[in-house]
Parts: sequence; structure tokens; C-alpha cells
Amino acid sequence: MSVPGSFTPQIDDDALRLVAKARILFADTDKMGIVYHASYFRYLELARVELIRSVGPPYSALETEGLALPLVEVGVHFSRPGLYDDHISLYCGLSRLSRVRVHFQYRVVVERGDRHGADERVELLQAETRHACVDRVTGKPQRLPQSLFDRMSAVRGA
Amino acid sequence: MSVPGSFTPQIDDDALRLVAKARILFADTDKMGIVYHASYFRYLELARVELIRSVGPPYSALETEGLALPLVEVGVHFSRPGLYDDHISLYCGLSRLSRVRVHFQYRVVVERGDRHGADERVELLQAETRHACVDRVTGKPQRLPQSLFDRMSAVRGA
Amino acid sequence: MSVPGSFTPQIDDDALRLVAKARILFADTDKMGIVYHASYFRYLELARVELIRSVGPPYSALETEGLALPLVEVGVHFSRPGLYDDHISLYCGLSRLSRVRVHFQYRVVVERGDRHGADERVELLQAETRHACVDRVTGKPQRLPQSLFDRMSAVRGA
Amino acid sequence: MSVPGSFTPQIDDDALRLVAKARILFADTDKMGIVYHASYFRYLELARVELIRSVGPPYSALETEGLALPLVEVGVHFSRPGLYDDHISLYCGLSRLSRVRVHFQYRVVVERGDRHGADERVELLQAETRHACVDRVTGKPQRLPQSLFDRMSAVRGA
Repeated sequence: MSVPGSFTPQIDDDALRLVAKARILFADTDKMGIVYHASYFRYLELARVELIRSVGPPYSALETEGLALPLVEVGVHFSRPGLYDDHISLYCGLSRLSRVRVHFQYRVVVERGDRHGADERVELLQAETRHACVDRVTGKPQRLPQSLFDRMSAVRGA
Repeated sequence: MSVPGSFTPQIDDDALRLVAKARILFADTDKMGIVYHASYFRYLELARVELIRSVGPPYSALETEGLALPLVEVGVHFSRPGLYDDHISLYCGLSRLSRVRVHFQYRVVVERGDRHGADERVELLQAETRHACVDRVTGKPQRLPQSLFDRMSAVRGA
Repeated sequence: MSVPGSFTPQIDDDALRLVAKARILFADTDKMGIVYHASYFRYLELARVELIRSVGPPYSALETEGLALPLVEVGVHFSRPGLYDDHISLYCGLSRLSRVRVHFQYRVVVERGDRHGADERVELLQAETRHACVDRVTGKPQRLPQSLFDRMSAVRGA
Repeated sequence: MSVPGSFTPQIDDDALRLVAKARILFADTDKMGIVYHASYFRYLELARVELIRSVGPPYSALETEGLALPLVEVGVHFSRPGLYDDHISLYCGLSRLSRVRVHFQYRVVVERGDRHGADERVELLQAETRHACVDRVTGKPQRLPQSLFDRMSAVRGA
């Protein structure tokens, strides 16, 4: 048996921004009546593309330069269940930036007033996704374009 | 910025069993031409339910006892991209078992001969999912039923 | 071999409203580089719940009355491929309303200016989904609550 | 309001073959406790790729010839709800074959003994998907390769 460390990422709340809100659909739920855990990963994608868009050209611009940012590692801690029709708030920021790596951190939250019949803020999860910059065709590691690196650095310092 | 530890689980290969095989569909891929990372989570679910089924009554029997095993924490390391039409092998085992927690570990692999045009074994990912035993209705922590605990202990020792 | 009729719904554009916009994610695409057809069904769900919300209590209010609106029949015609990062517009309206049935019709469109590098309006699909009102527990047909019927009738006449 | 025809495809049962079986996961269900309708579309994809594989080279061989078979139209009738842990049977056949079009028809069924606690065969849905043969890059209509057409014709006649 492995003696595992924690997969719960340490979140730096000062680095987070509200980047998008979204509505939980039937499509996201499972028969436990709550959000199926895998449904959150598309919301995390939405969060990081909106973070990138907020500082400059969209992620697709990276692709036109022949680059990609595939996911290498992910850690998630699920705190409380999300419910149907929750209006969730997606917070996202950088947790690390180097010439060849970009790490994003996240909180997904139901703010006070955004869950029917509830009157409190509910934390759903915290997560971190770690991406490498690679050549789209060969998959070989590449350096982030200087312009994206500079824009991302601004996010980090914000 | 957080100084994160690793989300890559330590896998005990002696504890793993081949529990299922599956075919990668268009539905699983994205425009990078590879498997979208979130698509793997349903295969991890398939792996753990087949592991449970292999030692006794299916997961649904737990539900009829009023219990559930929601996901609390997950860590995944993605090694190499999965491709369309790969015939993937799902390996799964227990990494921890207590009266109130069940942790599963996984490897997803394309065995030699299971990828068109390739002649080598390819590791796609290693993962660990950590689940708590709770009451289905209240969400409060509960002890695993003795029968399931015993059967699971047998898996662990196998 | 069957001699099939058309599954392309006839859309009454006067009955449609713009109910939501959404951003196409990697999660929605497949290795053809376009939106995977099944990805659209969650957007159709988003469209109809927002249409219902626009005229009164949300869909979840129906559930608290012990009712559900499961899908019985669906027809879709896909006109042109959706692309990554498209900002899609979801149009939705009623196509039929009776005491026990609700039919929704849809158009999904990329409006001029909402696709990077393109300068025209692009129709992605037209669809119709047909739902029955049933008891949530027994699945037996039920009449729509008068209040919802009245509100829906207003949509229809709008 | 449109006066719609039926989206329920006429199935020719003599043309259907059992092509695959699959296990319903939590991932497939929604908070109604049944299979979310959109979850079936990946099973329909699994069915048609296994039908193609059963008569010769897999679908990916079509891609290496620069072709694709995008979905143009779909009609589905949902008869009865699918449940968690159902072991579903996927039946698939051709409903039309021409030089530029391939139509598939489907039944998804829970055979007697494949649903926990039930003792009858349950029909979940019948469906038809209509695909055009196109050039992968330009999207322009193309003729099916003669070899695939011949193999498909054999399916049809079977």
C-alpha cells in the first residue's frame, strides 16, 4: 500500500480572480443528486481559458503558433457537493509560471444567494492543474512565447 | 504563489489487477487529436466498480444499505496521450482501506498490440481517488459495512 | 431497410428567443477539430431551462411538485460544424404545449463577429426535443401544473 | 408553431446485430436517478464503430484515406429509462447506404437478466443517425471508398 501525500492543493487566495459564472445542469449531476465529480473539469477548463482571455489573445492564439498546453498533473479536493441549478462562481489564478510550465489554481464556490433555498456561501472544491508547453505536432517541450509569458507574469503579480 | 507538492500518486503495482478494457471513442477525444483529460474519469469509475464487483456484490448493494462513497480527493499524473481507437487496459487496486475511507489506485495503459500502428506498451496515466463512506441522505460519515470491509481487505491482501 | 422520413424539425423562427450564449471548449470538441455532436445536448438543456426561468420559477420548482419532464423524442439537423472558442447563441422556443406534453425547438448559431477570423453568421443546428410530464417517482403521465401551463402559454403566444 | 412529424425511426430488426455490451455508470446518470439522454450518444458511437470493425478495417482507416463521416441528422425515441449498473446491449445495422451517405439504425436494450432485481427485457431506445462522407480537410462531399462500400453492402444484405 502506498503512503500517499495530500492531493489537496494549497490555494493562494490573493492570486485568484472571479473569471466566470455558470449554471449547473442536469447533464452535470448523477443519481446521488449532486454534481458528478468529472463534470467539474470542463468548468476548470472554462475558468483557465477565461483567465487567459482576460489578459490578452485567447488560448487559440497559442495554437496558431504551433503550441499546446496539455495537462500533466491535477489535484482536486472536493469539499461539499454541488447541486442542480447552483449558479457557481469560478475563481482562477496562476500558481506557477516558468518558461515551459504553467500551473493554474482554482476555487469553485456557490456564493451567498446563488443556491435556491440556501443562505450561505458554499465551497465546492479547490484544484490545481499543471500544464507543460509543447509543440502541437511533435509533443516535444517548447518555451512559452515571450508575449504570453509577459502577460501571464502580469496576472501572477496582480 | 503556492509551493505545491506532487499530485502524482505512488502506485503499488503488486496491488493492481486488470479489471476492464475499453475502446477510446471520438467522444473521448478533443481537437488536439488526443484523449481529453476529463474523459478518463469515467474509465476510472468503470475500473473501481469492476474491482468491487470482482469481490462480491456490486456498488449498488452499498446504496441499498443507505450508503455512498463520494470522491473527496483525486490526484492524476498524465504520462502520454491516449489516441482514438486505442484499446485501453484499466488496472485498479486499493491503496488504503479503513472503517470510513476507501482509496483506489489506477494505471491506464495501452498494451503492446492494442494501438493501431504501434508496437510498444504505452502508459497513459496513474491516478488515485480517495472516497469517504457516508450516509446517502444526510451526507454524514458512516462506517463501511463489515461484509464490504472484509471483502475489500481480501482485495488488499491479494 | 427502413424508408425514413426527415428528422429535421421545422422551426418557427417567430417563436424563438435568444436565451443564452456559451463558449465552446476543448471539452466539446473531438479529433475532427469540430464540436462533437453529443456535446450540443447539454447546450440544448441550458437553452430550455433558461427559457423556463425567463417566464417564472425555474425547472427545479417542477421537481418540488413531484413532477419531471423526461425527454421522449429528439430530432436534430446539423448544418455546419461548430469550432473551438466559438461564442454560440442559443435560441429556444416552444413548438407545442398541451396538458401533458411540452415540445421545445432550437437554433444554435454563431453570430457575426462571434467566431475568430470569420465574418459571417453560421448556423450550426436546428433541433426539437419532446418531453412528457410525469410523476417523478412512478414515471406515470401527469398533467402540467396550471401555473406552469399558463406561463408557458404566454411564451408560446409571445 | 410547427406541426412536426415523428422523429421515431422505423427500425428493421432483421438488419440489426448485437455489436457490443456496456455497463451504465454513475457518469451516465442524472439526478432523476436514470440515464441522462445525452449519455446514450457515446454508446451509439460505440455501436457503429464496432459494426464497421466487424466487417473489415476500423473507422480510423477511413481517416487515413482523408475522409470522415460527420453526423448530419439524428432521430431518437426514448422508450423506458436506463438505470445505474444496467448491462446494456447495443444493436446496430445499416438503414441506408449510397455512394455518399451511410445511415445507421440502433436499438439499445437491457436483456432479461441484465438489470439487477428485474426479470424482463427492457427497451431503452431506438435511434437512427445519418452521416455524409466528406473530405476531412475541406468538408466537401466525397464518395465512399469502393472497398468500404462493398463491405457495408455485405452488412446490409446480411
